[in-house]
Amino acid sequence: MDVDAYMAERIPLVDAAIEARISAFANAPEPIPERLLGAMRHLLFPGGKRLRPLFALAAAEAVGGPAQAALPLAVAVEMIHTYSLIHDDLPCMDDDVLRRGRPTVHVAYDEATAVLAGDALLTEAFAVLAAGADAESATEAPTRILAVARLAAAAGAKGLVGGQVDDLAFEAGGSPEGTVHAWLASIHARKTAALFQASIVAGAALAGATPVQRSRLEAFGRDVGIGFQIADDLLDADSEEAASILRLQGIDDARRGAEGLLDRALEEIEGWGEAAEPLRVLARFSIRRRR
Amino acid sequence: MDVDAYMAERIPLVDAAIEARISAFANAPEPIPERLLGAMRHLLFPGGKRLRPLFALAAAEAVGGPAQAALPLAVAVEMIHTYSLIHDDLPCMDDDVLRRGRPTVHVAYDEATAVLAGDALLTEAFAVLAAGADAESATEAPTRILAVARLAAAAGAKGLVGGQVDDLAFEAGGSPEGTVHAWLASIHARKTAALFQASIVAGAALAGATPVQRSRLEAFGRDVGIGFQIADDLLDADSEEAASILRLQGIDDARRGAEGLLDRALEEIEGWGEAAEPLRVLARFSIRRRR
Repeated sequence: MDVDAYMAERIPLVDAAIEARISAFANAPEPIPERLLGAMRHLLFPGGKRLRPLFALAAAEAVGGPAQAALPLAVAVEMIHTYSLIHDDLPCMDDDVLRRGRPTVHVAYDEATAVLAGDALLTEAFAVLAAGADAESATEAPTRILAVARLAAAAGAKGLVGGQVDDLAFEAGGSPEGTVHAWLASIHARKTAALFQASIVAGAALAGATPVQRSRLEAFGRDVGIGFQIADDLLDADSEEAASILRLQGIDDARRGAEGLLDRALEEIEGWGEAAEPLRVLARFSIRRRR
Repeated sequence: MDVDAYMAERIPLVDAAIEARISAFANAPEPIPERLLGAMRHLLFPGGKRLRPLFALAAAEAVGGPAQAALPLAVAVEMIHTYSLIHDDLPCMDDDVLRRGRPTVHVAYDEATAVLAGDALLTEAFAVLAAGADAESATEAPTRILAVARLAAAAGAKGLVGGQVDDLAFEAGGSPEGTVHAWLASIHARKTAALFQASIVAGAALAGATPVQRSRLEAFGRDVGIGFQIADDLLDADSEEAASILRLQGIDDARRGAEGLLDRALEEIEGWGEAAEPLRVLARFSIRRRR
């Protein structure tokens, strides 16, 4: 399976689902400030490679379900990823003026709107996951609530937010006692790997994964998430922090480490057959990519 | 039933549930930055009157359930209320340095930590609602997912966040065409009433409310939420915006309007008997309070 062909087929599906959700706002009877909608859309469109949503869909297929079962999660996880970028870019955090070659949200709009657009995307992520739920008819409720729990854990104080707090502290003054390398790994695990892992595990859960499948995908997701982050550092070796990891570890060591994670991840889903091929293709792409 | 005695009994129950949730972080195996935990706690303890959580518990009782059924929601709604205060106080928004007589979070910590503490509280609110959910055993899942949906709708782009965006725009340059009074009412409905309404409806849903009960409580909750906001404006008549509402409407008119909302709200739950008495007591207190 060719990763480019797979992405070319699947990314428009994700884009359309995000677009449908955002358009539903614009057409809602309740007033939605246009400025807020614009700021929420700013980084969502045009999107990036939508890797987290694609992993959610591929995980659903890998456990024998339709990819569509994971579509609400795919939208939710991209909204959370986007909110985290908007807030990370704020003047009080990384103070970035460009993101993917375009002005960041607080530059294109203003700081208050950027904070609020992030807040809205984070909140709407959970709304998407709960959408259509009804106490009378929600046979999907148990897996939906599990997806909410998994996503909130990955995004909250133990995950994304906690990682960002420690990342800012690291940039300001270094690591606590203990090795710098382990500390940076912990920050990256929380800032990046946790959301990949949640996308994969919750995506599979929405498609009816068994407990055994879910436990395999927990391990697969953790390795792929960390491998993705190493690939990111290798691509981004001119940034100060990434360089500091690579200097500590060495570029060849880092590449070998990533390959080891990939091998271990693929072993977890060995024997899962053709249905798991998208998951394998995405794992290889994420860890070996040069772009 | 005496409102002070009721609050004296119930507030500690809410405080203990919030404390238990935050302590669970502090004792978790995953690292949680101490600075983040401190900033999350800063406005949560000591708390205010915990009105939103108390309404959630009272609504659960009113439909014949145990108050405890609504405890996860009570914690979640207070976390969301607290996150919104932290973000509203930021320099790029209302730029407040004091809240309940203490330094605001960005003053006590810093701006980045305040943004992230708000993000964490918002995320953890949904984690609390989903906690304990498991695809195998979650018989409560349908009402939990309904509570997630209701809370996310009240807090998101159509509710709290959208109201804040329009509030900032109003302070900067006034209302769109149409009457100022209706515009301010719309802002307050989204910034305040929506979360009261969600606390009441979702609290009842978690205790097994019937569709008829839920629909009555939608109306009750809307009226109580707007009535609460009018009472707030009457208490806070020295603030510029509140004064502008009261100037438009007149203080006596505002009081009469609030009493009318209270009457209508109480009619919605007429005949609900003794179990609904806490709900009535809280409604009267919220709308007639002088503190």
